[in-house]
Amino acid sequence: MRNKVFLMAALMAGVAVQPLAAKEGMFTPEQLPEIADDLKETGLELDPEALTDLTGFPMGAVVSLGGCSASFVSPQGLVVTNHHCARGSVQYNSTAENNYLENGFLAKTMGAELPAAPGSRIYVTTDFSDVTQRMREGTDAMTPNERYDAIDQRAKDITAECEQEAGYRCRVASYYGGDEYKLIKQLEVKDVRLVYAPADSIGKYGGDVDNWMWPRHTGDFSFYRAYVAPDGSSAEYSEDNVPYKAEHFLKVSKSGLDEGDFVMVAGYPGSTSRYAMLAEVENTFGWEYPTFQKLLTDWIGTIEAAAPEGSDARVKYEARLAGLNNYEKNLRGQIEGARRVGLIERRREREAALAAWIAADPSRAAYGPAIEDLAELSQENATAARTSFWYGNATRAQLLSVAQRLYRLAKEREKPNAQRESGYQERDMAFFRQGLQALDRRYDASVDKAEWELFLSGYLAQPQAERVAVFDNALGLTGVDDARQLDAILDPYYANTSLDETETRLALMDASVADLEASNDPFMKLAIALYDYERGLEDEAEERAGRALALRPAYMEAITQWQSEQGMLPYPDANSTLRITYGNVMGGSPFDGMEYLPFTTLEGITQKDTGIDPFNAPARELALIEAKDYGQYKLDSIGSVPVNFLSDLDVTGGNSGSATLNAKGELVGLLFDGTFESVNSDWDFDPRTTRSIHVDTRYMLWVMEKVDGAQNLIAEMDIVD
Amino acid sequence: MRNKVFLMAALMAGVAVQPLAAKEGMFTPEQLPEIADDLKETGLELDPEALTDLTGFPMGAVVSLGGCSASFVSPQGLVVTNHHCARGSVQYNSTAENNYLENGFLAKTMGAELPAAPGSRIYVTTDFSDVTQRMREGTDAMTPNERYDAIDQRAKDITAECEQEAGYRCRVASYYGGDEYKLIKQLEVKDVRLVYAPADSIGKYGGDVDNWMWPRHTGDFSFYRAYVAPDGSSAEYSEDNVPYKAEHFLKVSKSGLDEGDFVMVAGYPGSTSRYAMLAEVENTFGWEYPTFQKLLTDWIGTIEAAAPEGSDARVKYEARLAGLNNYEKNLRGQIEGARRVGLIERRREREAALAAWIAADPSRAAYGPAIEDLAELSQENATAARTSFWYGNATRAQLLSVAQRLYRLAKEREKPNAQRESGYQERDMAFFRQGLQALDRRYDASVDKAEWELFLSGYLAQPQAERVAVFDNALGLTGVDDARQLDAILDPYYANTSLDETETRLALMDASVADLEASNDPFMKLAIALYDYERGLEDEAEERAGRALALRPAYMEAITQWQSEQGMLPYPDANSTLRITYGNVMGGSPFDGMEYLPFTTLEGITQKDTGIDPFNAPARELALIEAKDYGQYKLDSIGSVPVNFLSDLDVTGGNSGSATLNAKGELVGLLFDGTFESVNSDWDFDPRTTRSIHVDTRYMLWVMEKVDGAQNLIAEMDIVD
Repeated sequence: MRNKVFLMAALMAGVAVQPLAAKEGMFTPEQLPEIADDLKETGLELDPEALTDLTGFPMGAVVSLGGCSASFVSPQGLVVTNHHCARGSVQYNSTAENNYLENGFLAKTMGAELPAAPGSRIYVTTDFSDVTQRMREGTDAMTPNERYDAIDQRAKDITAECEQEAGYRCRVASYYGGDEYKLIKQLEVKDVRLVYAPADSIGKYGGDVDNWMWPRHTGDFSFYRAYVAPDGSSAEYSEDNVPYKAEHFLKVSKSGLDEGDFVMVAGYPGSTSRYAMLAEVENTFGWEYPTFQKLLTDWIGTIEAAAPEGSDARVKYEARLAGLNNYEKNLRGQIEGARRVGLIERRREREAALAAWIAADPSRAAYGPAIEDLAELSQENATAARTSFWYGNATRAQLLSVAQRLYRLAKEREKPNAQRESGYQERDMAFFRQGLQALDRRYDASVDKAEWELFLSGYLAQPQAERVAVFDNALGLTGVDDARQLDAILDPYYANTSLDETETRLALMDASVADLEASNDPFMKLAIALYDYERGLEDEAEERAGRALALRPAYMEAITQWQSEQGMLPYPDANSTLRITYGNVMGGSPFDGMEYLPFTTLEGITQKDTGIDPFNAPARELALIEAKDYGQYKLDSIGSVPVNFLSDLDVTGGNSGSATLNAKGELVGLLFDGTFESVNSDWDFDPRTTRSIHVDTRYMLWVMEKVDGAQNLIAEMDIVD
Repeated sequence: MRNKVFLMAALMAGVAVQPLAAKEGMFTPEQLPEIADDLKETGLELDPEALTDLTGFPMGAVVSLGGCSASFVSPQGLVVTNHHCARGSVQYNSTAENNYLENGFLAKTMGAELPAAPGSRIYVTTDFSDVTQRMREGTDAMTPNERYDAIDQRAKDITAECEQEAGYRCRVASYYGGDEYKLIKQLEVKDVRLVYAPADSIGKYGGDVDNWMWPRHTGDFSFYRAYVAPDGSSAEYSEDNVPYKAEHFLKVSKSGLDEGDFVMVAGYPGSTSRYAMLAEVENTFGWEYPTFQKLLTDWIGTIEAAAPEGSDARVKYEARLAGLNNYEKNLRGQIEGARRVGLIERRREREAALAAWIAADPSRAAYGPAIEDLAELSQENATAARTSFWYGNATRAQLLSVAQRLYRLAKEREKPNAQRESGYQERDMAFFRQGLQALDRRYDASVDKAEWELFLSGYLAQPQAERVAVFDNALGLTGVDDARQLDAILDPYYANTSLDETETRLALMDASVADLEASNDPFMKLAIALYDYERGLEDEAEERAGRALALRPAYMEAITQWQSEQGMLPYPDANSTLRITYGNVMGGSPFDGMEYLPFTTLEGITQKDTGIDPFNAPARELALIEAKDYGQYKLDSIGSVPVNFLSDLDVTGGNSGSATLNAKGELVGLLFDGTFESVNSDWDFDPRTTRSIHVDTRYMLWVMEKVDGAQNLIAEMDIVD
């Protein structure tokens, strides 16, 4: 079957079909045989069937870092991913004397490799099975809350059974809004070591300025190595550990890739909302995103003012600022993109067209009421999101959040482990503890207070009816309308808490509910005062989720059947599971009067370079460029070494670090970003503008060979022409 | 002779010659026969000889507005120029009830035309002659100050003789740094009327955001009409006046122009520094521009804080803010451009190459010392500019400037008119008076004080040795280092002045030196205290200028002879006289990984439109675009009506409003801007990136026909296929 998704999307957008337009679809591996013909026509030389075997070649080489994607590039457990996915480990190992962020890090031998940041993991998929029957059986007849609880409990049970084998992490993933469930079993590599990262001035070249932008010149690659116990089992860091023997690894291509060539990306896209209903889209783009984008701007300004550049506090908040800036830019791009494509109108038209299709055939009648109910539920969800927006923000103070988690933990601990809420089971405790420890490096009382005041000002500015009485009473906000009174109210919280001490926080992981209820810590008292209210919100949310679990599968069945009849191949929204997207190396015209070329070149680095961060390439690199010392990595059609390239692949956050493969399944690049005009594709794929950004392996190898002298790693990998 | 300037420039830049690269050269009309072959090869179908006749077709149709360029497009004196060149007249006629800025203005009949803003002029060139002999005779033997004075006096005398014919303005223009002088005689049309201007939401679409940017979608066109006395002579506004009978006017093309086509622009570029010497370039880009760009940023911030959005004061400062923002962006572009092309290094290389050429042949020996002396003088000029930078800014307070001009006027009035300084002669008094009147609309005491404090803070922050004792004494700054003391020092100036009253200012135009010296106005007292010091600075500047008048012609003769021997056709720096530049419709690659397409389309307006100024196209226009109602104005190769286009022409400020002509001399567009990557071309023409931006006549006609219903004007013009 031909994949006509991109064609339909273009037609639905009411525009002429461009000769080169991106292909929509984040396909699950098992869908690939269905699109085998198009894969071959697009250029794939491998047998599409081979791609469905997650433990064979090449999919067996693809791994997850949890939040980023990566892949094995040697049988010795060498893993390549984005610089920005491994940068936390570079930072963790940096000192004033050995500033690896500034100078880069290269282990010339395995013995010189450094432990990655605490909590770093490499997940290698070992098994994948359908558990839909067990997950859904009998749930149709349940009440919404029963259904939610049953599905939640079954997922925990299945996960627990699976994790009885030590060293593995398991997860039940939901597809098509609960229509299907899969169990994914992954080896959890806990001994991850940093092998090589270029300097920030290469790996983060362009920084926040170039983030989401094209033209791009970022060397966004780094290397980890997976270590396991001598017997091959997962183990915490130990000198006795040995490199993981990767059964499958990717060959690295050093030549050939050019405009129009086939590329595909295998990785773990996080989340999309392509099947969201009109009410949610309207609320998100009509209210939530614009409101939050404004709040983010204020939030960034608040932190910058409270933690001036050069201050100790600023160091603690750099990562948060980068994240907020990234998010703000993303939201701005999403809002602009939604306006450009007419997202709300398009979603309205899609719902009307679907309704017409259902009405056209009595056999489809059952879909009608389910979809109407789901539309009503979407509206309820939107209303709930709006109502709790400012309350949610007003409870963002970091120590309040700590107190809430600790009290919740004590409460959950009163239940048997298997029945505890996700995030509070024994399997979660290592991450829980790390979260409490990490607070030290990202908390400053005066900055936190400034943030909290900002959020509370927004909360106070709402109409009185939107305020939460229990919160007002607990915080002493009853009758308070003037944000200038906040200072006096909040000061005692920071003066009298001991939750800012790491040891205190960690010790309270073992506290009982009664212990905590006897605490005089103001944040703990506030957390306890809010507990029942928040459980009430949670119950309501679970009730709506329980209804959705019955309704959304019907909606997804209707929409996928409707799309299939139109010659499209529906695929599930991204859910952090392995997906494959394919297409071609391709520039594009993001807007009238302008074109993106498919490749950038070394010379573009020199053009951009000002000598000032983030445009401060190493002098050695600039000299090599000046000398046109391209080595074996020149692409003749552009007359230089390609640095980054564009493709029309369908990706989103979580795909970062994903292997970009050529027609033979060789590594030709790493996906690391999308263009600013693409970010709205999470909601509505616009084939005219969606372009993903990759770092070219030729640039990676050129930097390794010429700039950083990483010949040991080049020798370890299987480099092919 | 082939014009190889662009080729040489590319080679000098050390880059491969691009297949499509811009052509350098702002040629004087009399140079055109020298480049006739290349003009024809590039596509000109007219006889190049015809272009040298400034009073024939087509040059006779080209006029100056003083600061902008324009052209006749009907025998009835109808003149087309940029919207931004006529916008002051739209603003002048706007009221709360009839907001022509917001709604546009169209006179459906001549009787409905409105007087342009006071001071609006149309200058029609009637004669052009060489006066080099009279200007330079005997000046070589003079001392520098004698030489400066002699040349200044001769220019005044020649101008005065020429202006004995009433209704004419004359000017002696210097070319090649004083190597040649031309007398230009122009009919001064004083009765200028506003005929048609689209709304800001078309004519200023994109506003400051899109200023200097591509892709662009600005309908930057407006129409004036020239009126004269019934006998054809220049006259102030009168109901008895009649439209000026233009002997030559441009036909307007409504079709055909496409990528690669020949275009030329005839207009009045203001000023370039292509022959500036190394010392000046080093000082400008190494110190002055970065320092001033920083100051501009602070200055903008100061005004925005002192005149908050929505305040009455803000209205008065909108134009200044727009000007400062424009200037700041321009300087940023210049600084970036200079870095990108390596301007300082390139200038150093050019001077070295020129020196080598001189040394290679004893017959060139005389150039050597002249150039050495000029280099030394350039260094002196740079030092003087640096020394007076903060003093110059510290005397920017608007009422101080008024007082300085009034006192100077009283002083100059003691001399016979012919010997007075330029700007203080009887011929200047109308503009002088208008300047004093206009202050009301752009002055607010609290904003002015905030600006003055900013400048004085910069002045105080200098090393003590850089400060000016007479200024410190007069203002009471002696011993003051702390900017916080300024408030108390400046307050009395604003409290005790009466120069903020228009009547006072105008009355003082008739005051004697003694009258003013008896004044108690604090600004007048300060102006008088600074008078001798400033005349001393002026004398020193004139001494340097007098030396330059002897040295620079030698330098220009050397460099032009050297360039000519290399097959280039040298041309003089821009000096607000008529110039012709030619080339092709052409996109370009301003930087690695990106391309500018040569045309933008109507659909790009819809893409950009947010409904919020400056992206708020009229609903009627958006509906026409949605309906693809292109009328007769579609360009098939782009499938829409072209809005703006790019060319490789060599232009600068002052060219705004210039007629863009096709191979037959028909109007195909109006030049209105250059791309951000082009602004450094004032110093060093970079053929890879220099692109000028034009509004396409097809968009102009489409707006006139479809959006604004200006059928009367379309009928009046001669529209050709």
